[in-house]
Amino acid sequence: MSKAEKLEKIRHSLSHIMATAVLKKFPDAKLGIGPTIDNGFYYDFLLPEKLSDTDLPEIEEEMKKIIAENIEFKKSIAGRDEALKKVGQQNFKIELINDLPENEEISFYQSGSFTDLCAGPHVANSKEINAAAFKLTHLAGAYWRGDEKNQMLTRIYGVAFDSPKELRQHLEMLEEAKKRDHRKLGKELDLFIFSDIIGKGLPLWTVKGATIRRELERFIVDEEIKRDYHHVYTPDVAKVDLYKKSGHYPYYKDSMYAPIKIDDEEFMLRPMTCPHHFELYSSKPRSYRELPMRIAELAKLYRYEQSGELTGLIRVRSFCLADAHIICADLEQAKQEVKGALDLIEYVANTFGLKFGKDFTYRLSLGNRQDDKKYYKNDQAWDQAEDVLRQVLKEIKRDFVEMPDEASFYGPKIDIQMKNVIGKEDTAFTVQYDFVMPERFNLVYTDKNGGEKKAIVIHRSSVGALERVIAFLIEHYAGNFPLWLSPIQIKIISVGETHIEFCRELSKELKENKIRVEVDDSSETVGNKIRKASQEKIPYTLVIGDKEMGSDKLAVRIRGQKDLLNIDKIKFIEQLKTKIKNRSVELE
Amino acid sequence: MSKAEKLEKIRHSLSHIMATAVLKKFPDAKLGIGPTIDNGFYYDFLLPEKLSDTDLPEIEEEMKKIIAENIEFKKSIAGRDEALKKVGQQNFKIELINDLPENEEISFYQSGSFTDLCAGPHVANSKEINAAAFKLTHLAGAYWRGDEKNQMLTRIYGVAFDSPKELRQHLEMLEEAKKRDHRKLGKELDLFIFSDIIGKGLPLWTVKGATIRRELERFIVDEEIKRDYHHVYTPDVAKVDLYKKSGHYPYYKDSMYAPIKIDDEEFMLRPMTCPHHFELYSSKPRSYRELPMRIAELAKLYRYEQSGELTGLIRVRSFCLADAHIICADLEQAKQEVKGALDLIEYVANTFGLKFGKDFTYRLSLGNRQDDKKYYKNDQAWDQAEDVLRQVLKEIKRDFVEMPDEASFYGPKIDIQMKNVIGKEDTAFTVQYDFVMPERFNLVYTDKNGGEKKAIVIHRSSVGALERVIAFLIEHYAGNFPLWLSPIQIKIISVGETHIEFCRELSKELKENKIRVEVDDSSETVGNKIRKASQEKIPYTLVIGDKEMGSDKLAVRIRGQKDLLNIDKIKFIEQLKTKIKNRSVELE
Repeated sequence: MSKAEKLEKIRHSLSHIMATAVLKKFPDAKLGIGPTIDNGFYYDFLLPEKLSDTDLPEIEEEMKKIIAENIEFKKSIAGRDEALKKVGQQNFKIELINDLPENEEISFYQSGSFTDLCAGPHVANSKEINAAAFKLTHLAGAYWRGDEKNQMLTRIYGVAFDSPKELRQHLEMLEEAKKRDHRKLGKELDLFIFSDIIGKGLPLWTVKGATIRRELERFIVDEEIKRDYHHVYTPDVAKVDLYKKSGHYPYYKDSMYAPIKIDDEEFMLRPMTCPHHFELYSSKPRSYRELPMRIAELAKLYRYEQSGELTGLIRVRSFCLADAHIICADLEQAKQEVKGALDLIEYVANTFGLKFGKDFTYRLSLGNRQDDKKYYKNDQAWDQAEDVLRQVLKEIKRDFVEMPDEASFYGPKIDIQMKNVIGKEDTAFTVQYDFVMPERFNLVYTDKNGGEKKAIVIHRSSVGALERVIAFLIEHYAGNFPLWLSPIQIKIISVGETHIEFCRELSKELKENKIRVEVDDSSETVGNKIRKASQEKIPYTLVIGDKEMGSDKLAVRIRGQKDLLNIDKIKFIEQLKTKIKNRSVELE
Repeated sequence: MSKAEKLEKIRHSLSHIMATAVLKKFPDAKLGIGPTIDNGFYYDFLLPEKLSDTDLPEIEEEMKKIIAENIEFKKSIAGRDEALKKVGQQNFKIELINDLPENEEISFYQSGSFTDLCAGPHVANSKEINAAAFKLTHLAGAYWRGDEKNQMLTRIYGVAFDSPKELRQHLEMLEEAKKRDHRKLGKELDLFIFSDIIGKGLPLWTVKGATIRRELERFIVDEEIKRDYHHVYTPDVAKVDLYKKSGHYPYYKDSMYAPIKIDDEEFMLRPMTCPHHFELYSSKPRSYRELPMRIAELAKLYRYEQSGELTGLIRVRSFCLADAHIICADLEQAKQEVKGALDLIEYVANTFGLKFGKDFTYRLSLGNRQDDKKYYKNDQAWDQAEDVLRQVLKEIKRDFVEMPDEASFYGPKIDIQMKNVIGKEDTAFTVQYDFVMPERFNLVYTDKNGGEKKAIVIHRSSVGALERVIAFLIEHYAGNFPLWLSPIQIKIISVGETHIEFCRELSKELKENKIRVEVDDSSETVGNKIRKASQEKIPYTLVIGDKEMGSDKLAVRIRGQKDLLNIDKIKFIEQLKTKIKNRSVELE
């Protein structure tokens, strides 16, 4: 049994033990479900009174007592009638049993006084559980079966590990994640705000946050142009007809905003860029000589999110995607372009200081030949496309996992999965193969012999959605941005009134070298000013007093370091310019 | 009598003479109105049959005959009853007379057989008109009184000048304007397209047009940041409530698009940026030390235009404005900021090669103390604000005209008026004084003594709306963009197969120097390739054959010049980089 399988059993058994403890406190509690999740477990209850976080230690203590009793977990099988008898007045369980297919064997697990409808698996005996390696972490409200029309239940979350050391490490990581939360840091570092009267999920970028965003925008646009992408601008609204033509409409209808009527026509805020780029491509006859054509855009997109789902910059109602569609002549060209797109993605990730294996991994998301509703039907095209993507990943020597049933409706894709600070995996970048749109938009070109050929389309992101990637980077760097992304790169602190003029002159000189600098000439103490610069996580701080005014050297405080760096001014400026140009992640 | 007054009389008299000629051809024609316009005149008729441009020479001939008769223009005055008798069955004229205030003296002008309800003035005798200095130019449909519920009339346009030479010059200018039309050049140079399925008035920028746009964007953003503007990003949609709070809603309602319902809230595509920037300002307490705060954004705005009004890039349904709002502490600071904004505007205009007096002029647009509906009521604030703007224009020594009743609802403004290729004047840039929004949004700051003070806001544009300014520049340059704005800066032409590799190497070298280059290695003749580069209005063309491959020198064809420039390659690249950096308008 692997360690993961063992932990799975421990966590699942702890959810039952927690239910036992809760039932002891509230014998009338109604039980929802109690599954395992990443790092732990939860159980949903309908309780006669409201719980608070301060009630958790009491439940935890009760759980420890139960564990110490070395109780056994025993499985039993029942028919439907017997099963219904077993769950008694537990109405949620009754609902679950009634939803099971007729004649299905229904399994139960008994542990001490507690019996639960459950498919298992569990530990054989509670002595397998280290009572010092679990912790109940928090409470949340959760609708029964996730449906807001149902009753709201109380969900108790816990985490559990093999050893107390692993638990401690995990709790420290959560603590660190809380400190790094981009919503918290975004406020502390004054990067973005939300406004009730503008609307939920619609961030406003302050001058500092906007600086980070602009640096990222220019970085990706310049890099893409260097790689022969055609950067274009297309409208953020278009007629509904466009999305009907593209076939997106039925798949995206629920995530699009309501149409806007202009005269007698209906317009939509665009949820994607593809059909816009295809219109550009099709605006004139194209020759094989023009292919591959890489059409790129920093595109604002609009997708509906329920207000409860909105989370800082990660889940927003409008986001800006560095999007591109590569029109390819044939399979071989498509293969090369997928490779090129992955090369760009790795270049971007490496620039951020992220490494393959450690920070990101590859996933090949496949279709499902049986599901014609979710995926466009063309078995041969699916086979071919999936094969091309598989080959590319092998040729660039990247390990990957294959995920069935995770493709787009128009073809398979390669997802680059990124782990955030609490280890949660998410798709950061994606490269998609599309054999459907060329049909719908009649994306053709004239080949060498003058014949008309159908093109293939590769959809790809590079830096992803700016909102999301900035949220990720804030947390990844804990707000300590590398020089090129830092909104303020240097803070100059004046010791007294007589030094202010010199500070301003120095600031001017640095600005002329395109370095972002701020002078703190307030009447605060030098100590307070240094502390403030440190809280603002500014890469370099210069204190200017009499000594500095009489010298060509600067005493530079580097973020996070104790010792001052004594360096010639001209040399310092040159070093900074090089670091900015190279997008170096090191400050020294 | 000034020349302009004299021309005004000639043009007005020609409209009567044209009516005389048309009535001779169609005695039953009904007459609309016949005023003067810029450079000429028109008259509206309800005709028994359709006219075409080929009918105009015949009418012109008849007009010349009438002019040769030396007919006199005589004014007479009539009461309403007599006036109605005079106009007989001319039902449009009857309507006009009935709309006049009772007891008003009604004036008529008689010239030969023709009498018209008219306030004048006219020439005394048709011999004052040079029959060789006018021309009927074109026909158009026009609703009676501009109301589409009324009958459609036929409008005949004419132009008239003092001398045949001036007429010829004007017609040549019209011819030139047709060639420079940005819609025509935009197509020929492949800068932008429109797509029916995306929607009217929503341009898609091709890679070439997008390059121009991006260069302009970065130019203005970088220049503004250099001038200590805070560049931000705010959402393109916001709740209707925001525009109600700002007070824009009643003034902009008709030019806003229909609201978008999200859950239970109504959102609008924003028609302006002001309230978004005010929300950012008000997101935390502000001190006098932070002022003036110049909040700037490249902002996408959405304003309704009737489909009939949409004109290329000049009248669109969504545009991108380089907008800014400067929050000032007091009147003196506001004055300095208005000055600073004008300095930036002149810097931008000069960069485009535009000169004060020749290409642009100043206009001071004032409010109207009597009109409380159109303008926010606060006489003292209006007086003060108008005075500040007047002072600034005097201090920077710029002549200006004062225009009553042209202000914004929240304050007076300075408009920078630009003339397009046919001499039509339009507001290109504007600097507006606002004493209303600080009240509505409670834009306050803490002053030196810890008290709370109300701020003043300056609204300003710098490069204007990108769509509009690019349309203007296409026509101004006739497509011959200066180097820094040229989508392709150098075309390299291969003579034969053996030169292609060298062309690609050269192209790579130029690209590494951030020069935009395109290689034409097609199998066309060199002559055809040069012609194509010339049609594409590319600044520099290099032909690469055996001779060039064996030399360090380049033979450069400069756009619009016959002689080749022989220059060392390294020197040429350095020269180009300097020109691009300085945004030079000269190619030599």
